[in-house]
Amino acid sequence: MAVYTDISEVELADFIKDYDIGELLSYKGIAEGVENSNFLVHSASGSYILTLYEKRVDPNDLPFFLGLMQHLSDKGIRCPLPVKQNNGAMIGEIAGRPAALVTFLEGMWMRRPSVDHCREVGAALAALHLAGSDFALTRRNALSVDGWRPLWNRAAERADEVEQGLRTEVEADLERLEAGWPADLPIGVIHADLFPDNVFFLGKRLSGLIDFYFACTDTLAYDVAVCLNAWCFEKDNSFNLTKSMALLNAYTAVRPLSPAECDALPMLAHGAALRFMLTRLFDWLNTPEGSLVVKKDPLEYLRKMRFHRSIKSAAEYGLKL
Amino acid sequence: MAVYTDISEVELADFIKDYDIGELLSYKGIAEGVENSNFLVHSASGSYILTLYEKRVDPNDLPFFLGLMQHLSDKGIRCPLPVKQNNGAMIGEIAGRPAALVTFLEGMWMRRPSVDHCREVGAALAALHLAGSDFALTRRNALSVDGWRPLWNRAAERADEVEQGLRTEVEADLERLEAGWPADLPIGVIHADLFPDNVFFLGKRLSGLIDFYFACTDTLAYDVAVCLNAWCFEKDNSFNLTKSMALLNAYTAVRPLSPAECDALPMLAHGAALRFMLTRLFDWLNTPEGSLVVKKDPLEYLRKMRFHRSIKSAAEYGLKL
Repeated sequence: MAVYTDISEVELADFIKDYDIGELLSYKGIAEGVENSNFLVHSASGSYILTLYEKRVDPNDLPFFLGLMQHLSDKGIRCPLPVKQNNGAMIGEIAGRPAALVTFLEGMWMRRPSVDHCREVGAALAALHLAGSDFALTRRNALSVDGWRPLWNRAAERADEVEQGLRTEVEADLERLEAGWPADLPIGVIHADLFPDNVFFLGKRLSGLIDFYFACTDTLAYDVAVCLNAWCFEKDNSFNLTKSMALLNAYTAVRPLSPAECDALPMLAHGAALRFMLTRLFDWLNTPEGSLVVKKDPLEYLRKMRFHRSIKSAAEYGLKL
Repeated sequence: MAVYTDISEVELADFIKDYDIGELLSYKGIAEGVENSNFLVHSASGSYILTLYEKRVDPNDLPFFLGLMQHLSDKGIRCPLPVKQNNGAMIGEIAGRPAALVTFLEGMWMRRPSVDHCREVGAALAALHLAGSDFALTRRNALSVDGWRPLWNRAAERADEVEQGLRTEVEADLERLEAGWPADLPIGVIHADLFPDNVFFLGKRLSGLIDFYFACTDTLAYDVAVCLNAWCFEKDNSFNLTKSMALLNAYTAVRPLSPAECDALPMLAHGAALRFMLTRLFDWLNTPEGSLVVKKDPLEYLRKMRFHRSIKSAAEYGLKL
């Protein structure tokens, strides 16, 4: 939960006058998202989300993120559409921070996703990959395989504070993943963070995708691997094969995976689990007591790493080859 | 900022089925309020606020609070209207907590209230007092003069940690206020917490009052005194006489103050400042590090206590007698 920056009615009125959205009726800070400050804004023309980009977001990346949302929306993907200022710009400034206004999407994120939801996510992810194929901008994935060791180096020394033996275990995994990471798979725009809190549903139907602030240009099948981690484990860290079957086969029905992508899936899933373990570990060790941010447990992703390490082929995830 | 309890889509769907508000479209935790968990809910029939009452609220008080909102709304006061369940009840349960759904009010609370806003608040407070005059239920004010010493006794020993000499200063004030507190002034329903974040505006016009969870039966002029503290000091703790003139004279234009109420105003304002100093001091000393609650500075109210101690008559606040 997070609103890092409060804004005054004076600041907001000044910001809003550059947009053609009618009279301002209300705004409320939203207790969601951990990177930025978000407000739900009502105006005479409807509901919007105002995002203030805090220091973890590089302002130079904003044209990629906002341009991507615009591109995807134009291609029929249901995602927030950046609202342009009267001068055509998509990025403004409020309270000393870069800020953007996007359309509000109805729908709820699923605290307890079902098999039906996993199926919808698989199909939506494939549609996202297809729609992104002709997006002109690119952005490097700073949190892919070559970004893990620098992150690890800043956490390794204290890793055993979190779990005894973690240091040795991660070292071995890192070496294995760095050596074997697939280099020649199809790349394109990936969401890179398509967790349940970034996918809205109305009943069983997916109503939209949000939070493109980790999106980048990377291996498409890695995005599938992130979703396997995010959607197909139960709260007790057990793997739900029915959910992964639904997710994977809905994905391939829209965008078939090549044999090479299928072969790589266990390693990609293992790497995706490591990526989230590492950022959680880093935050766990470095978030000061008293911060407003709720720390997420890195060990959840250690359990997932171990699971994927034991997988020999994509068929074990239920993918129909 | 606060959402203490998250709720799942399953819990919410189960809760909502007792209400005739149409299909659920979205819900988002709101980063406002420090006592309860609040969600902005969109359904096919409109926008609502769902409040989960956390442990600081006594469930036995809910019929008073919700009944009051219903009563005031019926009398034309713009405030949230509790939505009734199909069986007529106003209080439900979700995530193990008592909960209520109320209508959403458009408008924004003023981080920087102007003289115009103070005038509107004065008139609205008087209208609230008149509208509450025939409300059937009563509720004791646990935070009036007889509640201060028990609270103080739990903080006094450590008071000088916050400011040297605070203990002696508060002891003297408490004795003076307990001895001289007016007993025979008109009583009725008071809001008791009408701070800027509980008053919504659209432009210069007041659009609604919210958060009746400190409302109680007490001296009406004490509610005016709370507003003097909440609205008429600048950020640097200087007193803005133009704002207090606007607030007080707008109040008396709707509900005239008796000579006895006018005479008591400096003492009531002094007591109101002490009341907020005490609860802030208690929270300051007792909120654990790492809590999600932002601590408010008790010394702001110490400065206000000192100001009111120096006031000899309501005329000094700009009240036209």
